[in-house]
Amino acid sequence: MKAAILTICPNVQMVDVTHEITPHDVMEAAFVLREAASNFPEGTIHLAVVDPGVGGARRPVALAHDGHLFVGPDNGLFTLITGHREPQELVELNRSQFWRQREVSTTFHGRDIFAPVAAHLAAGSRLEDVGTSVPELEPLHWALPIADEQGIQGWITHIDHFGNCITNISRELLETHRSNHGMKCYVGTAIIKGMQRTYSDVPSGEPLILIGSSDYLEIAVNAGNAARLFSIRKGASVNIVFTDRHV
Amino acid sequence: MKAAILTICPNVQMVDVTHEITPHDVMEAAFVLREAASNFPEGTIHLAVVDPGVGGARRPVALAHDGHLFVGPDNGLFTLITGHREPQELVELNRSQFWRQREVSTTFHGRDIFAPVAAHLAAGSRLEDVGTSVPELEPLHWALPIADEQGIQGWITHIDHFGNCITNISRELLETHRSNHGMKCYVGTAIIKGMQRTYSDVPSGEPLILIGSSDYLEIAVNAGNAARLFSIRKGASVNIVFTDRHV
Amino acid sequence: MKAAILTICPNVQMVDVTHEITPHDVMEAAFVLREAASNFPEGTIHLAVVDPGVGGARRPVALAHDGHLFVGPDNGLFTLITGHREPQELVELNRSQFWRQREVSTTFHGRDIFAPVAAHLAAGSRLEDVGTSVPELEPLHWALPIADEQGIQGWITHIDHFGNCITNISRELLETHRSNHGMKCYVGTAIIKGMQRTYSDVPSGEPLILIGSSDYLEIAVNAGNAARLFSIRKGASVNIVFTDRHV
Repeated sequence: MKAAILTICPNVQMVDVTHEITPHDVMEAAFVLREAASNFPEGTIHLAVVDPGVGGARRPVALAHDGHLFVGPDNGLFTLITGHREPQELVELNRSQFWRQREVSTTFHGRDIFAPVAAHLAAGSRLEDVGTSVPELEPLHWALPIADEQGIQGWITHIDHFGNCITNISRELLETHRSNHGMKCYVGTAIIKGMQRTYSDVPSGEPLILIGSSDYLEIAVNAGNAARLFSIRKGASVNIVFTDRHV
Repeated sequence: MKAAILTICPNVQMVDVTHEITPHDVMEAAFVLREAASNFPEGTIHLAVVDPGVGGARRPVALAHDGHLFVGPDNGLFTLITGHREPQELVELNRSQFWRQREVSTTFHGRDIFAPVAAHLAAGSRLEDVGTSVPELEPLHWALPIADEQGIQGWITHIDHFGNCITNISRELLETHRSNHGMKCYVGTAIIKGMQRTYSDVPSGEPLILIGSSDYLEIAVNAGNAARLFSIRKGASVNIVFTDRHV
Repeated sequence: MKAAILTICPNVQMVDVTHEITPHDVMEAAFVLREAASNFPEGTIHLAVVDPGVGGARRPVALAHDGHLFVGPDNGLFTLITGHREPQELVELNRSQFWRQREVSTTFHGRDIFAPVAAHLAAGSRLEDVGTSVPELEPLHWALPIADEQGIQGWITHIDHFGNCITNISRELLETHRSNHGMKCYVGTAIIKGMQRTYSDVPSGEPLILIGSSDYLEIAVNAGNAARLFSIRKGASVNIVFTDRHV
């Protein structure tokens, strides 16, 4: 894919965000993309290819949202980027003059369609050049956390390099429902009370809950690996129960 | 190695093709190099260091082929790049003024010889500057697939990140021998009939055979991991048997 | 972190040295940093974030040493860079105008403090701009090898991608004490005699000791994996016993 990009746009600055998405896991990719994209400067072109349906019916698309461009398959990858709104501009990639000039494979559109289009955009082409305007992204419905005054039920969306377990429970959702109650968190084999500010607020080897750097609730172990210690996998459920007193 | 390159040529555009070649596996590296190199633009310098004989008798070389330059040990790495032809230009790296200016180690010529030479080539030196012309690459004979009208026997050369198993049976070889017969493929614990166009042509979890993006026969599982499911390892044999009817 | 850097300094040349330090292992990071840094050209900014105490009391710092700049937490990471000397210039990072302009998290100062400061330094800010001068780095005492005329006791500081086991016994220390004696090395389940020049000096699959490319004693297996074969882990002790005759 980088070779394809450099063939078209030799002076581009490329950053690898991750090559470690679980194969075929569009949901995990969508979470990581949302988290990463917002930190890049305006005008960044985000090339995202988790594409289990390559060569099949899903559309190849490019879109503009909040000053960033995104290129990839229309399979839900961009659902969390745009939230419930439609992207400012959305095109279906259907102009093969912007694709690989040799044979286009049926199994690697990352190399043959998405990377060349991203490179053409980096080299100055506009969205309306590389495809035809279409009305909306394929709607995909992600399971949302369930919240009331008793507590919140969410799930683990991502386990990072350190074994920290990131949930789909945002700071905002938690603050809205918790008010000034205490809380207990049930996850994997652990029950954890209260909220901390940072890892070293508890002794080494102790579990904690905190709002992580992505502004989502995170389960961690200070200087340890929470996923391994508490047998927590991606997709595991997380139950927050509010308690009477602020603990 | 990158530090060595940047010391000599600070504005170079560097791409990491892979750091995941099985240690010491020159054959796997040769397949990946052939596959990757052809996608890069003309003038690219390919620095390839899988070098189990470092510090021993194997020659350090640089060569020109089809508008690309290659730098590395003369141990078979470049065999598939040049095919059965000799490279257009081939030099043995024997001019230490183009090497690391501090001590040259006996165990890391990637850092001390190959990266500095590649950087000097990127900065404008020519092959004839960095070494002395030599007649030919060390000949290495790769096992080739065996093919007749009954079928083809090849082997797995590479297993990718998804568990897809890539063989040494090219589209061309298959088409030449298969004519309009059907086929069955025996590999690992699987027997797979027919050929598909892309992964999603079969239901999720089902095995398939297809011509992959490198134009070689590939064994895959739609949304799954063929290597794990069928206990297929690199080097495993693959038997294609042609059948009477086109299935 | 790269997004943060590019937001401030879009044309920087970035190199990933490693993302594979054992989580929270400041000592391993310090060894790898010393090894890597010396190969980069003068003026390089080294951004090093192994930061188990993030959000706690440890100071964020930047320093100048031997023509290089370093940015990261003051937790021992830079101990081996400066040796027993103080850095030429050392500042505590306490000027938030050089940090992330959105909220600064308590758990990811790599993204929110260190990367932005490194980017400002790359864009031309000076150390005295980004922080206040402080007298010295937090002193950290690394266990040093013990050496006399009988032998040397050290330990494994790093196991590389090939399973080669790098010790904290430098070429200099060994030469000083060994004079012209022979030697035996006890490490993991292996006893290895003598010293070699490079891996292929012994047959395939045989163990050897040599001075590696970092100028430290290294235990290896030619075309094999010493760590796996001899059950050697990071931190394992290494005993060199000098023998009467030069073997």
